[in-house]
Amino acid sequence: MERADIAIIGTGPAGISAAITSVIRNKKIILLGKKDLSQKMQKAEEIRNYPGFPKISGRDLAHAMTEHLESLNIEIMERQVTQVYAMGKYFSLQLAGKESGTDMAEADAVILATGVMPGKLLPGEEELLGNGLSYCATCDAPLYKGRRVAVIGYSPKEEEEAAFLGEVASQVIYIPVYKGEPRKMKNVEVVRAVPKAVKKGGAERIIETDREPVVTEGIFILRDSVSPGQLVPGLEMDGPHVKTDRSMKTNLPGLFACGDIAGLPYQYIKSAGEGNIAALSAVSYLGSL
Amino acid sequence: MERADIAIIGTGPAGISAAITSVIRNKKIILLGKKDLSQKMQKAEEIRNYPGFPKISGRDLAHAMTEHLESLNIEIMERQVTQVYAMGKYFSLQLAGKESGTDMAEADAVILATGVMPGKLLPGEEELLGNGLSYCATCDAPLYKGRRVAVIGYSPKEEEEAAFLGEVASQVIYIPVYKGEPRKMKNVEVVRAVPKAVKKGGAERIIETDREPVVTEGIFILRDSVSPGQLVPGLEMDGPHVKTDRSMKTNLPGLFACGDIAGLPYQYIKSAGEGNIAALSAVSYLGSL
Repeated sequence: MERADIAIIGTGPAGISAAITSVIRNKKIILLGKKDLSQKMQKAEEIRNYPGFPKISGRDLAHAMTEHLESLNIEIMERQVTQVYAMGKYFSLQLAGKESGTDMAEADAVILATGVMPGKLLPGEEELLGNGLSYCATCDAPLYKGRRVAVIGYSPKEEEEAAFLGEVASQVIYIPVYKGEPRKMKNVEVVRAVPKAVKKGGAERIIETDREPVVTEGIFILRDSVSPGQLVPGLEMDGPHVKTDRSMKTNLPGLFACGDIAGLPYQYIKSAGEGNIAALSAVSYLGSL
Repeated sequence: MERADIAIIGTGPAGISAAITSVIRNKKIILLGKKDLSQKMQKAEEIRNYPGFPKISGRDLAHAMTEHLESLNIEIMERQVTQVYAMGKYFSLQLAGKESGTDMAEADAVILATGVMPGKLLPGEEELLGNGLSYCATCDAPLYKGRRVAVIGYSPKEEEEAAFLGEVASQVIYIPVYKGEPRKMKNVEVVRAVPKAVKKGGAERIIETDREPVVTEGIFILRDSVSPGQLVPGLEMDGPHVKTDRSMKTNLPGLFACGDIAGLPYQYIKSAGEGNIAALSAVSYLGSL
């Protein structure tokens, strides 16, 4: 199991900046996120207000940041974090990722830099989480052995998760929320419908859609990111953002947040600045332990 | 007189970032500060945690930022701001600068990005300001026509101010707080002593030193920067920093602060991030007028 001083979740400008400053301050870090960095940054046509780069494409800025990470020998661990537990003196992170199944990592401090979630939660989603609704097929498939489940997949890469569930559950209904035909999967029935809400009905879990409701015993919602309040139980929010103070502290000691997730404005340079603050606050927190 | 939407005071990373974002948002700005940017930045040997520049000297980062300003046709007005007055719906800035004497500028919003003052105020300085103690020879020399004044100069460039006072006052005592011999100045007596405190004694103003006290009718203290609480009457401070909220607002509507002056940590990327936030908050304030 990986054990670090600071676990940093997210590889946009906030997470990268936090990683750089943490490593310069001689801390052992785990940097979790996408190796091709933030999708939003990659797709930005032209960034004009990141001081020092008069006109730069998102792709080129991401490239400059990747080189910065490489110059400090910082590697990105490409695993999705499905849950962060505050254990008192340290944090335990639940990781998903097909290549090696479920796994855990531990860190004395955690910096959340996951960005803001595109789109909204489904009505009922928050209430049902952990009660017949899961974000992680790899983690929770065993709970549904021989039972019926429904999977809402927000991108084609979730088909692999659905196929895996098909091997375990008695029946899988897969609802793709994207264009394009899902591949053939054994024991998986594809249903084209737009999910509108989720709810409980006795032992059953119901997805209301624009067509017939989908009724099974368990629901998996598979997105690229999880909302921070669900990622970290007990985390205080301020609307869609994690509530932080000027030093990027959250309500949980040792947990910091920065970048878009910590509030407006959504700007690359603001995120990079906050990543730096969060890292120095985490370093200071480690010193106080 | 210059009139702008936003006046930005300071040309370190915070002021530059604020200027860039303000101009991109189509605001007319005045950017006041040194053309060779922040001295502190110029002197930094190596900056390693400004994401996108793996290893860069302060000089090179300053150069990249200057090019960024030039690419947006942003000019730096090299004038010292000696006072900022909140006039209700706008701000009035008193400018000093030898080439054209005292001058004023006006702006609907002001962003303070002056950095932190090196060193501390002298005991008694705050109490005496405006009551026989001044920071601006160009502005206040006429008040001391035919009278005796003392000048504490923190750098050789203040000798010019002392020489100017020598032409107006009946007698000038010049206390250089730096190494090196001041040049000969007519009607100016150089006294080598370390200033310890300033105080009032009836009509006289007294500089206590490690030697004899220096007694005159007026004191000029000439430094590169003025402390923010003195620069802007009524500005709420938090120790040595300007008190701001997450959006870089101060207690005075339309006045924003960012960078080192707004609090720790003193880091280039943090300052650049806050400059961006301050600019967007100022833009939003202008929209509300």
